[in-house]
Amino acid sequence: MAAEQDPEGLAAARPLLTDLYQATMALGYWRAGRAQDQAEFELFFRQCPFGGAFALAAGLRDCVRFLRAFRLRDADVQFLASALPSDTDPAFFEHLRALDCSGVTVRALPEGSLAFPGVPLLQVSGPLLVVQLLETPLLCLVSYASLIATNAARLRLIAGPDKRLLEMGLRRAQGPDGGLTASTYSYLGGFDASSNVLAGQLRGVPVAGTLAHSFVTSFSGSEVPPDPMLAPAAGQGAQVDLAASVETWLERVCGHLGLGVQEPHRGERAAFVAYALAFPRAFQGLLDTYSVWRSGLPNFLAVALALQELGYQAVGVRLDSGDLLQQAREIRGVFRTAAAQFGVPWLQSVPIAVSNNIDEEELARLAQKGSEVNVIGIGTSVVTCPRQPSLGCVYKLVSVGGQPRMKLTEDPKKQTLPGSKAAFRLLGSDDVLQLAEEPPPQAGQELRVWPQGARESRTVRPAHVEPLLRLWVKQGQLCEPLPSLAESRAFAQQSLHRLSPAHRRLEQPALYQVALSEKLQALVDRLSARGAL
Amino acid sequence: MAAEQDPEGLAAARPLLTDLYQATMALGYWRAGRAQDQAEFELFFRQCPFGGAFALAAGLRDCVRFLRAFRLRDADVQFLASALPSDTDPAFFEHLRALDCSGVTVRALPEGSLAFPGVPLLQVSGPLLVVQLLETPLLCLVSYASLIATNAARLRLIAGPDKRLLEMGLRRAQGPDGGLTASTYSYLGGFDASSNVLAGQLRGVPVAGTLAHSFVTSFSGSEVPPDPMLAPAAGQGAQVDLAASVETWLERVCGHLGLGVQEPHRGERAAFVAYALAFPRAFQGLLDTYSVWRSGLPNFLAVALALQELGYQAVGVRLDSGDLLQQAREIRGVFRTAAAQFGVPWLQSVPIAVSNNIDEEELARLAQKGSEVNVIGIGTSVVTCPRQPSLGCVYKLVSVGGQPRMKLTEDPKKQTLPGSKAAFRLLGSDDVLQLAEEPPPQAGQELRVWPQGARESRTVRPAHVEPLLRLWVKQGQLCEPLPSLAESRAFAQQSLHRLSPAHRRLEQPALYQVALSEKLQALVDRLSARGAL
Repeated sequence: MAAEQDPEGLAAARPLLTDLYQATMALGYWRAGRAQDQAEFELFFRQCPFGGAFALAAGLRDCVRFLRAFRLRDADVQFLASALPSDTDPAFFEHLRALDCSGVTVRALPEGSLAFPGVPLLQVSGPLLVVQLLETPLLCLVSYASLIATNAARLRLIAGPDKRLLEMGLRRAQGPDGGLTASTYSYLGGFDASSNVLAGQLRGVPVAGTLAHSFVTSFSGSEVPPDPMLAPAAGQGAQVDLAASVETWLERVCGHLGLGVQEPHRGERAAFVAYALAFPRAFQGLLDTYSVWRSGLPNFLAVALALQELGYQAVGVRLDSGDLLQQAREIRGVFRTAAAQFGVPWLQSVPIAVSNNIDEEELARLAQKGSEVNVIGIGTSVVTCPRQPSLGCVYKLVSVGGQPRMKLTEDPKKQTLPGSKAAFRLLGSDDVLQLAEEPPPQAGQELRVWPQGARESRTVRPAHVEPLLRLWVKQGQLCEPLPSLAESRAFAQQSLHRLSPAHRRLEQPALYQVALSEKLQALVDRLSARGAL
Repeated sequence: MAAEQDPEGLAAARPLLTDLYQATMALGYWRAGRAQDQAEFELFFRQCPFGGAFALAAGLRDCVRFLRAFRLRDADVQFLASALPSDTDPAFFEHLRALDCSGVTVRALPEGSLAFPGVPLLQVSGPLLVVQLLETPLLCLVSYASLIATNAARLRLIAGPDKRLLEMGLRRAQGPDGGLTASTYSYLGGFDASSNVLAGQLRGVPVAGTLAHSFVTSFSGSEVPPDPMLAPAAGQGAQVDLAASVETWLERVCGHLGLGVQEPHRGERAAFVAYALAFPRAFQGLLDTYSVWRSGLPNFLAVALALQELGYQAVGVRLDSGDLLQQAREIRGVFRTAAAQFGVPWLQSVPIAVSNNIDEEELARLAQKGSEVNVIGIGTSVVTCPRQPSLGCVYKLVSVGGQPRMKLTEDPKKQTLPGSKAAFRLLGSDDVLQLAEEPPPQAGQELRVWPQGARESRTVRPAHVEPLLRLWVKQGQLCEPLPSLAESRAFAQQSLHRLSPAHRRLEQPALYQVALSEKLQALVDRLSARGAL
């Protein structure tokens, strides 16, 4: 999709989506004659989020789109000029005007890959000035996408494969694009659909949704529907006055439930009838606007049974307050007796959807064995990732002009791993980082590695060796088409499936090891010794 | 700013930025002949964020922009048609094609106002179908903006008025627009500037930034600067080889600090010289790439003193790891002795900037009396609001066709307040919500009110009465220009200043009362009784 035809893409691609220090450093590099020095940066995180032992890599598609569209327009350069010293050499701004990503090469984990601390999600190489400028946008595009994909994957693991998970957090996101990113990458991470229409339109995420309490409260029951007539589902036969049929069914339903026929709220019933007239093949009842037991449920049943007479099946009910698990159980019980009473077998298995601030703990409760909940809508907890609302990715220089670079600092946690690297997954043991020039590890052959942070090396003999980083963009050109979002989603589930249960466990998992090759460890030691002076 | 000229605005204004159920309800309303019924919704929150007793209202400017640009294009309608039943009456889509906000009226708290639970931030009235469709985008645009403005205000209260607060969280935000929203509204809430260039370009937020560790590590010291010559600040006099001058100064600095002249990292020094050549009037040193004491600080002093000889003053140092308060104190000590030693008085007061995962607690430490920290950069903690990453605003129907509407549910916390309302701030006591048709409270006159959730009324005699909600958009037309972002920022500080210290306190504050007028309380009671059946 060309950015020009896609205002959302164009917005995401705005080249000034960056921190000012990237521009000041650009001037510094340029002034030092180093703009074209070949540099390589790695984008990685230092700790898996949410106390887990894995993350999912995501955001690459947005990075690629950003890179391909990256170009400073006149207005951008003018704004930078206004933020930089007034005596800056105009030739610098000419340099900026000519910038693009035609010299930039990107290797990356495919979206939906498992990612572990220190293993690059992206390796970005190219002219120093440009790849420096890309730091902030790439971090912005990868960090949250990977965080929410991981969060969604955790929620999917908790829910199990059969519950339908619906993301509905647009209103809780950090503005429009936060919502769009959330919908896109929670789908990648394992959700089934989103409420966000824009995510459907722009990203192809399946969308879902029915009605809110305001629809129900907007009806008093005194409204006169302009056309209450509904034709049978098969298309043949006389139209029926649905509102009138519902009133007839209500008496039978109230009799069955032991309720007075005046108890169910007539405004709510009018709303359900209105919705059923608009969606006879997709009628869903939102049960808790007034009272689930005395109003929502009998009104739903009356409408569902009236529709049934015309050959339509209701598609579900939704609950948005109270003890969702308990209510679902009781509602299922009512569905079963009503199915028997009225001779409508499908009524037993009408899907029950729930929502209302569902977090990991509540989801586990809702997904427990015997739960009658079928569809779970999650907003805040998936979108804001409250357990850890940022992944803390970093983007670090690892080489310039072919020479390895390392940040030491006095805080060992903030040290970086120098040199252009390759990464491999050794089946049954570790991920291994090694220098790009080293030959890849071979399956069945012994290998000495240094687990990160360990003081001793160990020997591994991998059963299988898998290279992790793929070349996606070479000198600005896309090397292979990116997988579709749905393909990445399937790949994420495969990746998780292959992870050992000990690492996949969400609480107190076994840590996944990332090790360095002997040569890389030796380089770290050499540069540390030199830097420590 | 017309949306057409502003791709970012255009993106924000995409009309499908909504939940699918708004579209399904739209069809339901339309089918029931109710699309044009006059309805009013209120947007409010139920609890102040972060355990505090106040919030700041924000996001109105984005809402107004969204409303004014709101229009479904052909592609939007086509997408909706693909998501709705295939037998939907084509006349519905014609209705959508003609939709705009020309019938929509908005009253709202001015941006930067104090907001309290239950008091509408926005009142939105107009044709039922349209104002329903606006629910999700308005919630999306107000919730996070208000949350982050409140978060920023808290951080400003902790920091006190004199510390310079810099937002630098773009890389930790929920995608590009999350970052843009964060930068905009943390400025409104009391920050001084942002690192986010796009926020400068599109929103006029002051931007700031200097250099990162990658700039420092990119230099080995063996690079040959193409032009190390620098002219004096005054413009008169011979150019000087800055690199050479720095080497001379380094000896004196090392002598003063008791360090060997080989100890400071030459790559770091080369980076500082390169930066100083690009920014002689704005030189800042990032001290902790290798070692603050043995490298960063002496290198900074050598460059600062070499610049000083040419008449330039360095503008600061930055620390990004370790104990920031303690290091700032020690660095200030070194600056003082160096200022005396080298006869450069301004060196004593070079601003010290710090960053590195600063949260409220660490900020309080950095802002304590005697702290030598001058500038504080905050990223993750301001942008992600980790203490509470969403505000939980809701948008509830309060009237249709002039009739009040109320959601009851069995969960009293989720009940709504019916009817079209006015809101007043009574100086020295409460906010009062009353029905729109009631006469406003009068200063000095006794008034009986019902504090929310209380079982008894109480009498107040306000010293001053201030209407809270202002008419901004009438039938789609802007009634008065929105204040600039800087004006709203100033208003937020005034608002906070007027709030009593007991409510302003961040931990265990006194709760601010929001009360209902007698008539509103009577309406609530009447509808509750009716709804409870």
